[in-house]
Amino acid sequence: MKVEIIAVGSELLRPDFRDTNSLRLTAGLNAIGLGVSFKTVVGDGESDLARVFRTALGRSQLVLCMGGLGPTEDDRTRETLAKVMGRRLVFHKEIRDGIRERFKRRGVPMSASNLKQCYVIGGAEVLENPYGTAPGLWLDTKRHKIALLPGPPREILPMFENHVVPRLAGIGRGLMIRRVIRLTGLGESAMETRLKPVYPALPAGVSITTLASPGDLAIHLIYEGAGPGEAAEGRLEELDRAIGRILGRWIYSRNGESLEETVGALLRMRGRTIACAESCTGGLIGHRLTDVPGSSEYFLESAVVYSNKAKTRRLGVETSLIDKHGAVSAAVAKAMALGIRRTSGADIGVAVTGVAGPGGGTARKPVGLVYIALAHAGGATVLRNLFFGGRAEVKFQSSQKALDLVRKILTPGSGKVL
Amino acid sequence: MKVEIIAVGSELLRPDFRDTNSLRLTAGLNAIGLGVSFKTVVGDGESDLARVFRTALGRSQLVLCMGGLGPTEDDRTRETLAKVMGRRLVFHKEIRDGIRERFKRRGVPMSASNLKQCYVIGGAEVLENPYGTAPGLWLDTKRHKIALLPGPPREILPMFENHVVPRLAGIGRGLMIRRVIRLTGLGESAMETRLKPVYPALPAGVSITTLASPGDLAIHLIYEGAGPGEAAEGRLEELDRAIGRILGRWIYSRNGESLEETVGALLRMRGRTIACAESCTGGLIGHRLTDVPGSSEYFLESAVVYSNKAKTRRLGVETSLIDKHGAVSAAVAKAMALGIRRTSGADIGVAVTGVAGPGGGTARKPVGLVYIALAHAGGATVLRNLFFGGRAEVKFQSSQKALDLVRKILTPGSGKVL
Repeated sequence: MKVEIIAVGSELLRPDFRDTNSLRLTAGLNAIGLGVSFKTVVGDGESDLARVFRTALGRSQLVLCMGGLGPTEDDRTRETLAKVMGRRLVFHKEIRDGIRERFKRRGVPMSASNLKQCYVIGGAEVLENPYGTAPGLWLDTKRHKIALLPGPPREILPMFENHVVPRLAGIGRGLMIRRVIRLTGLGESAMETRLKPVYPALPAGVSITTLASPGDLAIHLIYEGAGPGEAAEGRLEELDRAIGRILGRWIYSRNGESLEETVGALLRMRGRTIACAESCTGGLIGHRLTDVPGSSEYFLESAVVYSNKAKTRRLGVETSLIDKHGAVSAAVAKAMALGIRRTSGADIGVAVTGVAGPGGGTARKPVGLVYIALAHAGGATVLRNLFFGGRAEVKFQSSQKALDLVRKILTPGSGKVL
Repeated sequence: MKVEIIAVGSELLRPDFRDTNSLRLTAGLNAIGLGVSFKTVVGDGESDLARVFRTALGRSQLVLCMGGLGPTEDDRTRETLAKVMGRRLVFHKEIRDGIRERFKRRGVPMSASNLKQCYVIGGAEVLENPYGTAPGLWLDTKRHKIALLPGPPREILPMFENHVVPRLAGIGRGLMIRRVIRLTGLGESAMETRLKPVYPALPAGVSITTLASPGDLAIHLIYEGAGPGEAAEGRLEELDRAIGRILGRWIYSRNGESLEETVGALLRMRGRTIACAESCTGGLIGHRLTDVPGSSEYFLESAVVYSNKAKTRRLGVETSLIDKHGAVSAAVAKAMALGIRRTSGADIGVAVTGVAGPGGGTARKPVGLVYIALAHAGGATVLRNLFFGGRAEVKFQSSQKALDLVRKILTPGSGKVL
């Protein structure tokens, strides 16, 4: 069964529109085992809207349409769908009485424009709307199930839960289970090449989608099919293990957790504390670590030492070292890591210094050159990196690499463990 | 001319997907006078994708399709559109050489899966992608203009601006001009109430949309209609002035700039430096300030003093003060601001301490209680705030309020000016 969500409204085609309704509906559909195949956004114009309905009825069997049920001139969903389906609109006195009652309670006379909302497509069931004047409609024909729902979130969500979901009982076949593996430290195509052997051997009902952004990769494992749940979970588990064997060293999370959550859990588990010395990341590492509730247990501080003077004064990085090697250098990164560890008293000191761009790059030290250093009881290590992208990407990838180094040093079996 | 944006990718049909690309593209199209008529989201499956292409070619003349150009198994945009159009795929040696070169620079061998990306639909122009391996394609036929663009924002946006927009020159009829006023410090409904008198008196062709998130508001002024540009700009200017009279004290930007950009520009203009002492924001203020290129000119450092020990050691906040008032208190906020100003040598010291939640709140010091202090040549001030929302919202609103205080003290006519 193909499912389509249609959002109607010219305001939805503007650059500042954020769609949240369709996401909530998708979550509700997924929960009963229905995936969405198409999402369409269209304006209020009748001919465009008619086209969209014809297309949807041609390719989808369940159509959820939201918006365009209001009292105003540009609300044309009802009329247009009726035309496309060759059905008439029928006046419902009960709807008018309900709306009139609603206005009366608010001490306002019913507006003439609301009369529009009393017309129902022939053969449709009326879905009650306790939160607004626009009733919903439900059509159940031989080939289609169609819901017309109001646009405002506080109206559509209860209507969907209370009136649409029960009408879909038994339609959603089986289950949809999702698992997200997250990784960092290798490129998208390198991941893909390594994953190649996995695709032909996917367990029945399981599919894979991969998502990439600079410094972060995700593999979504999706099971769609019949129950029971344990069997489905078993298949995802099997695939998860197969992927773990191939990509294990880059995987930081097997259930969608963020890298900062993973690092936080490891620090807590091993009873270690951390402090950061940030130059080009500007505070991003501290910000990410403290996005995790309870991070005060292991995160002591971050010295965002943007100026050279701050590097010297806060962390004891020698002026001569900066003069000799430059602020962006392995030597300074190492001194920063050792300095923050010493002055904070943390078990782990992590330091970042680099050229975030867009300015400030030279032939020898180009934009994207970032040194990351780790200081711990066993000594200190420095890594030279060259990141691509704009300022925001370089900052993010730097924070990602720094956190991943901390993850590795706290993970048994990944070499040197703290 | 009907314009359609198609987003390809099964991950886009999930309940957690936030579409931002199509909004950026819409803004770009609007800027050259083109409105969007249809937006479609479809998964990676070939038959669904083919259906969507057939529909788009039937109803739209300009089709911008994003995603599905990557090297992975489930990237099928190129192949599918070629089939729908009845065209062949042609191997381009130059693309392969370019990708190979890209990998070489990073010291990694080119992956076999990237070979896929070297195939071009017959008759298409190749659009260069300096930010990734997936080249874009441009097709200009008798009835259609079609752009195939990569999915990642950092790749699609430059490609759209540099290669698609120039190819659309002269197509857009009339003007669509947008101006974004940004403000902070008052609620959405308070803004709406104050804006009420403006709506009935909107200049011809101009409309308003407002957008709200915790701690940040935006008012979009949009002109749609005929030229000349100066007349349209004049009408927006007139409306902008009217809104400025009503909401001036909360407005931090009249051309869409972020608050950190505004603050950065003011610091640079007035030749002042800044340093931060962050507790509950965890580095977010430093991160935001350093998102602005060139911020090293005025941003010296941020001491993210999460632990009490760090507050004392880095900033000289007396232990007795923390013992007496607690780390989340006006006294400690003030001491932090004075401490960071003194130890950093900055002109302005800004400090934040609060309860970000979800844990750690008490009846007297609930989640969301945040003290913000400012130290400058004229003395020090502290503000008590109670923010609503989750951990991320409290952190963001705290950083927003702190930056806005800095903005105010640097803005002539807003009271005490530094």
